[in-house]
Amino acid sequence: MDGMLLAELQSVVPGRVSTATETLDRYSRDQGPLLSPALPVAVVRARTVEDVQELLRWATRHGVPIVSRGAGSGVSGGAHATDGCVVLSLEDMNRIVAITPDDETAVVEPGVINGELNDAVAEHGLMYAPDPASYRWSTIGGNVATNAGGLRCAKYGVTRESVLALDVVLADGTLVSVGHRPFKGVAGYDLAALMTGSEGTLGVIVGITVRLRYLPHAVHTLAAFFEDFPKAAEGVLAIGRARVQPAILELLDGRTLEALDGAHGSELRRRGGALLLVQTDGYGAAAEADVIRAALTELGAVVNQEDSAEAEQLVDLRRHSRGDSVDDLYRVGEDVAVPKSRLVPYVAALEAMAQKHRVQLKVVAHAGDGNLHPTFWVDRSEGAQGLERLEEALDESVRSALEFGGTITGEHGVGQYKQRWLAWEQSTEVLDLQSGIKRLFDPLGILNPGKAIG
Amino acid sequence: MDGMLLAELQSVVPGRVSTATETLDRYSRDQGPLLSPALPVAVVRARTVEDVQELLRWATRHGVPIVSRGAGSGVSGGAHATDGCVVLSLEDMNRIVAITPDDETAVVEPGVINGELNDAVAEHGLMYAPDPASYRWSTIGGNVATNAGGLRCAKYGVTRESVLALDVVLADGTLVSVGHRPFKGVAGYDLAALMTGSEGTLGVIVGITVRLRYLPHAVHTLAAFFEDFPKAAEGVLAIGRARVQPAILELLDGRTLEALDGAHGSELRRRGGALLLVQTDGYGAAAEADVIRAALTELGAVVNQEDSAEAEQLVDLRRHSRGDSVDDLYRVGEDVAVPKSRLVPYVAALEAMAQKHRVQLKVVAHAGDGNLHPTFWVDRSEGAQGLERLEEALDESVRSALEFGGTITGEHGVGQYKQRWLAWEQSTEVLDLQSGIKRLFDPLGILNPGKAIG
Ligand SMILES: Cc1cc2nc3c(=O)[nH]c(=O)nc-3n(C[C@H](O)[C@H](O)[C@H](O)COP(=O)(O)OP(=O)(O)OC[C@H]3O[C@@H](n4cnc5c(N)ncnc54)[C@H](O)[C@@H]3O)c2cc1C
Ligand SMILES: Cc1cc2nc3c(=O)[nH]c(=O)nc-3n(C[C@H](O)[C@H](O)[C@H](O)COP(=O)(O)OP(=O)(O)OC[C@H]3O[C@@H](n4cnc5c(N)ncnc54)[C@H](O)[C@@H]3O)c2cc1C
Repeated sequence: MDGMLLAELQSVVPGRVSTATETLDRYSRDQGPLLSPALPVAVVRARTVEDVQELLRWATRHGVPIVSRGAGSGVSGGAHATDGCVVLSLEDMNRIVAITPDDETAVVEPGVINGELNDAVAEHGLMYAPDPASYRWSTIGGNVATNAGGLRCAKYGVTRESVLALDVVLADGTLVSVGHRPFKGVAGYDLAALMTGSEGTLGVIVGITVRLRYLPHAVHTLAAFFEDFPKAAEGVLAIGRARVQPAILELLDGRTLEALDGAHGSELRRRGGALLLVQTDGYGAAAEADVIRAALTELGAVVNQEDSAEAEQLVDLRRHSRGDSVDDLYRVGEDVAVPKSRLVPYVAALEAMAQKHRVQLKVVAHAGDGNLHPTFWVDRSEGAQGLERLEEALDESVRSALEFGGTITGEHGVGQYKQRWLAWEQSTEVLDLQSGIKRLFDPLGILNPGKAIG
Repeated sequence: MDGMLLAELQSVVPGRVSTATETLDRYSRDQGPLLSPALPVAVVRARTVEDVQELLRWATRHGVPIVSRGAGSGVSGGAHATDGCVVLSLEDMNRIVAITPDDETAVVEPGVINGELNDAVAEHGLMYAPDPASYRWSTIGGNVATNAGGLRCAKYGVTRESVLALDVVLADGTLVSVGHRPFKGVAGYDLAALMTGSEGTLGVIVGITVRLRYLPHAVHTLAAFFEDFPKAAEGVLAIGRARVQPAILELLDGRTLEALDGAHGSELRRRGGALLLVQTDGYGAAAEADVIRAALTELGAVVNQEDSAEAEQLVDLRRHSRGDSVDDLYRVGEDVAVPKSRLVPYVAALEAMAQKHRVQLKVVAHAGDGNLHPTFWVDRSEGAQGLERLEEALDESVRSALEFGGTITGEHGVGQYKQRWLAWEQSTEVLDLQSGIKRLFDPLGILNPGKAIG
């Protein structure tokens, strides 16, 4: 970058700018596969709303792209640097501004870590419900920008359902407030929902009012081992047919159990070809667990007899299971979702695809929401040939999810990596409307260009 | 209207057009106060998506405003006719297209009545959760277009939380599909949420995929009589502090009890100055009801000892309580919402305002969501003077709700009537963004002009 520009940047947000190579490198990517590596020209760690406004005014004056970034735990390349960009890190804006127990709301800066908000509100008998498996790492700002899901979203809804109001800095530095502080509000269009999931392409989220939920009175956890994966998927439908809503309903296939065994010395795989983890909560938790246990046992599952410490540990392992190996081009974790009833045929189709394309596959799923994370991989030593088969398997798995009435991304976002699939799901007219909205909010196209939309 | 135009309209949607004065009159307004009476030039009752597309192509060619209309149960004038408009009634597009019990979804045309969808899915142990008190009358299309709330939204969320995907005819007749059929999906911006609550100003909703919930295993209903209204509002906070989430939490003041007594021969008012109706549901319903009963009794409320038929009847009356008298300029029902903890001071402020401005007041509230429906009125015989005091009271009640961190409309929408308050809540920048979105979707401004946004 032009030295004058950089000097101006340093003068508008003094003390916040870093251009050390190490820093540029560290902030150049998130956890998603990297298609076109690029370094930012600078990293700005904002501490205040004014910092963000000053930075965006500067970026607007000079047409510099800005890539917002929370913890960088994203897996779609949404926070990957692009050519000539400045990465705006929100991680230092990490104050919990207010917790109002009687309103059951909290106001936070974007850099607050999900798990830390949960720790803070737990003292009041409250929780912030959306809990991505990255909750000890990812930020509320990043969660909102991706409309993150999580384990207990089966019952409590995804991030959008917990977002009441947002403070957003627009591309030109203007600060706006959207949404409403009471639980309900319908004045004008729902701009808070529009911002939620917009992956840093419409504005920078600098303040968030969230709705909190009650910490459950009781929790019961079941671990149900099934013969194979399709049978376990049938278990998901059986719970639905019993008309019981679990808080958590996670599905792990045999390869995932093997990976857990390898990492933790457990013997899960020996006990079954797939595992369904179910948590019920609230005053009805025990009764609900009984109904679910009966339904799954009838399907042939082996289920723990009562609330067990082991089952809770397994949920805990699941919360971290994605961390066992980071994705790269040879190993890609996906995020399709299908209507619930299609889980059974879809997992069968996935297994067939892995065979056909001779790629490795393991799957975990937020099964209550029909949201699957298949991870496909090939051995790095296979080089280009392996990569080709991997890409074919990935493409087919996405096409198949769409044929089943699904979506290319249930919770991780389009980012950079899923761009090639977007037009498979959305019509030209819809893509055009999205570009139109983008142009309205960001006429110069400086906010995270090349991400989220087509 | 120009005879040629009308003839062309009749030829593009043959058999659907009516210009009979009686029909024009009947379709000229909803249940909201009428500020500037106008008759439509024609009413089109569409039967198919193609009808809607043809109509909009015709409207685009000739720049004719289109006012979409479901059942006309709206109370903000959102479906009021405006000068030179054609009213597009969706009431004949009333097929339930599909119910998929294992997906827990249904696909409906916009004219399906809320209560009829609920009857149809109940056979499968399912419910469509958002239940405005108009549920036996209003349409799902209208519910989506207003993002309607309802009684059990306290637990299950408002309409937006049950909308998965929408088919929408845009201003130029293009048909688009937005949203996702699985429970989760984050591809691109959340256009389904943007359409939800857009009051017919961004497109015509012609198909709706909704998420269904489980019919509760059990329901317990409590009727808690309090000395006065502020005490009952404290009861709402007490339930929150007990960290129990009721499905329904409705608050009725003394004047509302009097109105119910008058209409139904009951003696509610004698039993207290305000009533809190609480319903818990699910496997924990009985235990939850016990906790709530204890909390309210401690506050001095008189609560039925166990699940009682009377309490259920009262919920039923409440579901219909708004119908006792239709609003007009002399009697206006409002729809503010405040953060939950502000309920107590806000209801006290409301009572003081009514006294100060010498206007009549009664209030019901979806109290679990902080959403209040104060109705202010003056005697018609007071003429202009009475009207002036009424307007002052209305304005003050809205300003006060905003001062308490609230919104001008929790669920009814801005429509035509609440236009004057919109800029009190939203900044110029936010109003401008909304106009920009409007222009993007509807460059000619033919979709329900003068409604919803500033
Ligand atoms: C082990 C592991 C488990 C995971 N589990 C889940 C899961 O269960 N559910 C799930 O949904 N995701 C999951 N993820 C993905 C990821 O954690 C989420 O997408 C998370 O919401 C990202 O938050 P972040 O703070 O890391 O954001 P980042 O990765 O830094 O950014 C994500 C996107 O948001 C934008 N952004 C970030 N902050 C802002 C802001 N303040 N304003 C505007 N735009 C902003 C970025 O530009 C980028 O496009 C997982 C990831 C890992 C590594
Ligand atoms: C007795 C009574 C009780 C009520 N209780 C509640 C309550 O508890 N909660 C609540 O939220 N509301 C309530 N309302 C208000 C009203 O019923 C709701 O706003 C309802 O959602 C309107 O539905 P409708 O089919 O009557 O729509 P209409 O009144 O016909 O239209 C409402 C708005 O939506 C637009 N619209 C309608 N259909 C479409 C479509 N297919 N595509 C695009 N735009 C469309 C119209 O242009 C208009 O702006 C109540 C009303 C009454 C009279």
